[in-house]
Amino acid sequence: MNATIYQSAINIAAKVGLYLSLTMLIPALVDLYFGHPDWKVFALSACLMGSLSLVTVAATQGGPPPFNRKMGFLLVNLLWLVVSIVGAVPFWLSSVNLDFAEALFESVSGITTTGSTVIAGLDNAPPGILVWRSLLHWLGGIGIVALGLFVMPYLRVGGLSFFKMESSDTTEKPFARIVTYTRAFVLIYIVMTVTCAVIYGYLGMNRFDAINHAMSTIATGGFSTHDASLGYFNSLPILWVATFFMTLSSLPFSVLILFIVRGRLDTLKDPQIIVFLSYLTVLAIAASLFQRLENGVAFHEALAHSFFTVSSILSTTGFASDDYMLWGDFIVALAFAATFMGGCSGSTAGGMKAYRFIIIFNSIRAGLYKLIYPNGIHTVRYGKALVDIDVQRTVFLFFTAYMMIWAFGSLAMGAFGYDLLTSASAIATALSNVGAGLGPIIGPAGNFSTLHDPALYLLSIMMLLGRLEILTVLVVLTPLFWKE
Amino acid sequence: MNATIYQSAINIAAKVGLYLSLTMLIPALVDLYFGHPDWKVFALSACLMGSLSLVTVAATQGGPPPFNRKMGFLLVNLLWLVVSIVGAVPFWLSSVNLDFAEALFESVSGITTTGSTVIAGLDNAPPGILVWRSLLHWLGGIGIVALGLFVMPYLRVGGLSFFKMESSDTTEKPFARIVTYTRAFVLIYIVMTVTCAVIYGYLGMNRFDAINHAMSTIATGGFSTHDASLGYFNSLPILWVATFFMTLSSLPFSVLILFIVRGRLDTLKDPQIIVFLSYLTVLAIAASLFQRLENGVAFHEALAHSFFTVSSILSTTGFASDDYMLWGDFIVALAFAATFMGGCSGSTAGGMKAYRFIIIFNSIRAGLYKLIYPNGIHTVRYGKALVDIDVQRTVFLFFTAYMMIWAFGSLAMGAFGYDLLTSASAIATALSNVGAGLGPIIGPAGNFSTLHDPALYLLSIMMLLGRLEILTVLVVLTPLFWKE
Ligand SMILES: [K+]
Ligand SMILES: [K+]
Repeated sequence: MNATIYQSAINIAAKVGLYLSLTMLIPALVDLYFGHPDWKVFALSACLMGSLSLVTVAATQGGPPPFNRKMGFLLVNLLWLVVSIVGAVPFWLSSVNLDFAEALFESVSGITTTGSTVIAGLDNAPPGILVWRSLLHWLGGIGIVALGLFVMPYLRVGGLSFFKMESSDTTEKPFARIVTYTRAFVLIYIVMTVTCAVIYGYLGMNRFDAINHAMSTIATGGFSTHDASLGYFNSLPILWVATFFMTLSSLPFSVLILFIVRGRLDTLKDPQIIVFLSYLTVLAIAASLFQRLENGVAFHEALAHSFFTVSSILSTTGFASDDYMLWGDFIVALAFAATFMGGCSGSTAGGMKAYRFIIIFNSIRAGLYKLIYPNGIHTVRYGKALVDIDVQRTVFLFFTAYMMIWAFGSLAMGAFGYDLLTSASAIATALSNVGAGLGPIIGPAGNFSTLHDPALYLLSIMMLLGRLEILTVLVVLTPLFWKE
Repeated sequence: MNATIYQSAINIAAKVGLYLSLTMLIPALVDLYFGHPDWKVFALSACLMGSLSLVTVAATQGGPPPFNRKMGFLLVNLLWLVVSIVGAVPFWLSSVNLDFAEALFESVSGITTTGSTVIAGLDNAPPGILVWRSLLHWLGGIGIVALGLFVMPYLRVGGLSFFKMESSDTTEKPFARIVTYTRAFVLIYIVMTVTCAVIYGYLGMNRFDAINHAMSTIATGGFSTHDASLGYFNSLPILWVATFFMTLSSLPFSVLILFIVRGRLDTLKDPQIIVFLSYLTVLAIAASLFQRLENGVAFHEALAHSFFTVSSILSTTGFASDDYMLWGDFIVALAFAATFMGGCSGSTAGGMKAYRFIIIFNSIRAGLYKLIYPNGIHTVRYGKALVDIDVQRTVFLFFTAYMMIWAFGSLAMGAFGYDLLTSASAIATALSNVGAGLGPIIGPAGNFSTLHDPALYLLSIMMLLGRLEILTVLVVLTPLFWKE
């Protein structure tokens, strides 16, 4: 690879690092407002990382960046890496006393919208730190939607793309379209967050909690300002509102963007939306029935907690309303299976995502037909669209790579001394960016604060792998990528 | 499908049912010899199922059977189903008091060479029943190798085939070759069993135990005549001999057949053999080191038990020398991962098998290269041979179908009330035909005798699915298969 690519990639990543450093002034102001001495930590981190970024930007200034696939892959990996490290600095320096592995984990968990936390005692944590965590979620959410809308389709990693659905719009210039769509998206994202915060506030959260939880909800992040997560508020209406916004945020943003920009609602017919909402409903009703019939919970409570919990996992948010480990073995199995599933593409949700399951199921059917009639033509469709062989391959590669990495990761966690349920659920929840694990340590009633550093580094890598759709990272790890 | 296919398939399956009924006279003689009254059960079962089979054969007699793919798929499914039901009858009627679900489970577990048992108190079980279990393993082993050698390649399910490796031999007539190879295979299978039995006897097993365990070892079955499995004999030499024969039996029989028939050893270069032996060695040494360093076990003991346990799971035999649940969390994770892996194709071993992992890893690499250079040619190879797109597809279909069925099956077990470890390991051990699960109920120190009937039926289906390489069964469940 030629040097221009490195230089340009580092330059762009450093610019983003600079913006993120400036954002640290927000938690600094919050700490100042609440009179917490940690405002100095944020001010110092902003100066430190800001000047480091500025120097890097200046040192790598050059001509216009080259645009090709290698540059795309390199830049995406570098961006998430730089942002993770910059984001970690305030955690490392702050009064919450995290070592570097813990600070990096918390930052990666924030920016990847995973929401696993190593901070125990959130209820008494400095307000600036809590805001910084929410901000990382919120910005990470914008980043991942932008990546899904504009970059992944070009890199051919994400499978289906917004632009493919929109291939009829060839009249406009692509760049003008990107600007229009980005504006529409950020506007929608802000409006959703504000609406969610206002309703949370109306239902009894104080202003600070409402804003933080709204950012965490819309980004399908999962960080909370309380150790008991949403269970702290002990309010069924709040659970229903969270359920609504988590579910909305796991639908493709393209639906809302197209509605705002063009007044069109036809992308609502996207098969992944139907499939996602179907499996959400089926799992939630199964959990409700189990809660009602096995545990004798009042039906309206069972319904609220089940829909909340299932949509929290499927949207890959990871909020908890209760310790569902205690609900029964069936719920544990269901939560575990749901951890892999995920939401829709083009949203802030992670996991395998509904469209991949559609393609996998249709491919299996076509493959079985081919075994019966080897010479017949057996096409694979997504809705009405034909899925070409390259997209099928990418989906299968993603699925197998995901399962292999999960297996190896779980084995490594086992070697670090953790039991199988903790190991397997930690890797799965990190890869899917859900954030809540299973078992007594990292389950809904626990957190990641007791994990050793090697496990935290491993899980940080898993969160980044999952967030960048795995293949994007694996590509950069092949020798071929670095040749020439 | 036309009626001739049904008629012929039923006719052939009934003939095989007749042979299996006649085989019941062996345990009848054994019970007579030991003076156990259950000889009547076997005699009765032989008469009952023998005459039923005979009537069916007579009623479905017709012209020569049509040979096409539909017939192949139908026949394979029907054969394993009929043999499972016929094999269950003696268990159902015998003095060990099994209900039908349990009897069917034990029979399916035998014929699929899974080796999970619902019979607690094997040490005092009637000798005829013990012999019947071993015989089902032994015959099931012959059946599956024959299927892999002659039928699966034709149905294009197994991926790689013995005949493809042998495509240079076009001078002979295929049928003559099938007869030669079948003779060679059965001869090798008998010689291996006798050798294994003689060595077991030499090392201290009584004649009855030696013969039963030899049949179980060579078939990579796992049924034992003692609740403590091979741990009963408390002998490291016996563990090493079992390790040797289990490993040998998970190598492709084609290697030995070609050596006997033609004096050729070049198929030893088959990449799956190297990969299989490599991961066996790596996992066994990892387990030995863990045992030595974490638990302070003497090195020669750690080595013997670790190699035995790892090769027992990877060869999908499922013998136990010890309750390895107690060795530590890392070993539990390792045993769980190994449950999926399996041996080589063309053997009696189940699981995903080494050649599939080779193809998957090479496909992932090629897929990543394609993401970097979308217009380049990125081939997938197995050793030196090119793997065509259809074989790649079948391997990915198998992998995804396997994981999906495992997930759904585990959820169903959860709904039946079992904990996640029991559920997930039960389905995995059944799908891979290993036989040993994890956790207190079905782990190496337990058995399947306390499972409810719905779970036993589900696991019986899983064992058959796994044994017939999943796709063979799924094909028959598609609507397209039954059209026309
Ligand atoms: K999350
Ligand atoms: K077995």
